[in-house]
Amino acid sequence: MSLPPAPGRPGMGIVCADISTTVDGFGAGPGQCLERPFGDFDQGPLHAWMFDHGEENRAEVSAILDAGAYVMGRNMFSPGRGDWDLAWRGWWGEEPPYRAPVFVLTHHPRAPLEMDGGTTFHFVTDGIESALARAREAAGERNVSIAGGASTVNAYLAAGLLDELRHHVTPNTSGLAASAGGSRLFEGVPAIGLVPVSVRHTPHVTHLTYSAGGHRQNG
Amino acid sequence: MSLPPAPGRPGMGIVCADISTTVDGFGAGPGQCLERPFGDFDQGPLHAWMFDHGEENRAEVSAILDAGAYVMGRNMFSPGRGDWDLAWRGWWGEEPPYRAPVFVLTHHPRAPLEMDGGTTFHFVTDGIESALARAREAAGERNVSIAGGASTVNAYLAAGLLDELRHHVTPNTSGLAASAGGSRLFEGVPAIGLVPVSVRHTPHVTHLTYSAGGHRQNG
Repeated sequence: MSLPPAPGRPGMGIVCADISTTVDGFGAGPGQCLERPFGDFDQGPLHAWMFDHGEENRAEVSAILDAGAYVMGRNMFSPGRGDWDLAWRGWWGEEPPYRAPVFVLTHHPRAPLEMDGGTTFHFVTDGIESALARAREAAGERNVSIAGGASTVNAYLAAGLLDELRHHVTPNTSGLAASAGGSRLFEGVPAIGLVPVSVRHTPHVTHLTYSAGGHRQNG
Repeated sequence: MSLPPAPGRPGMGIVCADISTTVDGFGAGPGQCLERPFGDFDQGPLHAWMFDHGEENRAEVSAILDAGAYVMGRNMFSPGRGDWDLAWRGWWGEEPPYRAPVFVLTHHPRAPLEMDGGTTFHFVTDGIESALARAREAAGERNVSIAGGASTVNAYLAAGLLDELRHHVTPNTSGLAASAGGSRLFEGVPAIGLVPVSVRHTPHVTHLTYSAGGHRQNG
């Protein structure tokens, strides 16, 4: 999935987001916690295409891991909603797959956390634009990836800061009611137009790529 | 888009549904009425792929119009939520495009309404299974199409009565909140698995076809 340079920003990567959801848009259920990082919800299909069927989705997995820096929401980094447990070092063990700087959106300051293999978690307390600016600087000419969850992707979409949305749709419904809570792609995003770029079907996931036109607002 | 016969039902068509929604799943907004049949919501993109860009979507438009009988929800046939205005003859003029029997789900009895060109609207007051049984009988060996809206498709999905879902996703968000009301695909459907069959991208719509496995429950 090679990408042309974004218009108006020669030598810069684009800001893309990768998010897996059910056909009804849920990236996580309500009640996320240590035991159920994706909440009260069958998370199996959201993971299976990457971890159990990585071969048939090799291009998309590679694209996710190709960014020069990442931004993620607090709930993607850590369970719970209280203050930081400073012993918490993310869900990914001592050698996370990012191998790049990861900027975690949070209200709780914390010193950077250097992991094995090139990943360093930086904790950003002054909002999504600041996190993106820092990620862009770290990424240089490479892409910045908004790594999730859905509510973080929504915030970047709503702010017009996203160039490309890569929506990985698993072929199942969540069974969750709209009022159940959880994290749902496009929730709270104003009415915007996207431009279909490509689509690919596999037995376990459909990959939909849209241009979100973010470069128009922030080029 | 030629379809193989559904397993276990030789000589019978399948039960398919065609529904257009935004990327966030809305097929109509809240406040549907005579002036705004799709409610308080930009309905433009939901129609444009069929009516303004029919050439590039010819196969999908043909498939919609290929059924031997249709089922549709009350709100798709008529504005308002009160009793029937018996002068109302549908949204499609004197010669609707269906050219087949159309079974309208309603709580208000009404005599069949024969239109020009082969369409007859039948009003069914005893539920979705009855409407489907009548549509199947009328369709013979041809497919039955659940024509919408989203809440009617949801009812058939939830009941396990759908063989195939053809979801036509337009590349725009609705801007509606989950709590706004309106008609949203997959709302109230329990957690079910679908099987991706095919996907096709056009500039104005993405066509996603899923097997919904309805024949397993009602073959």
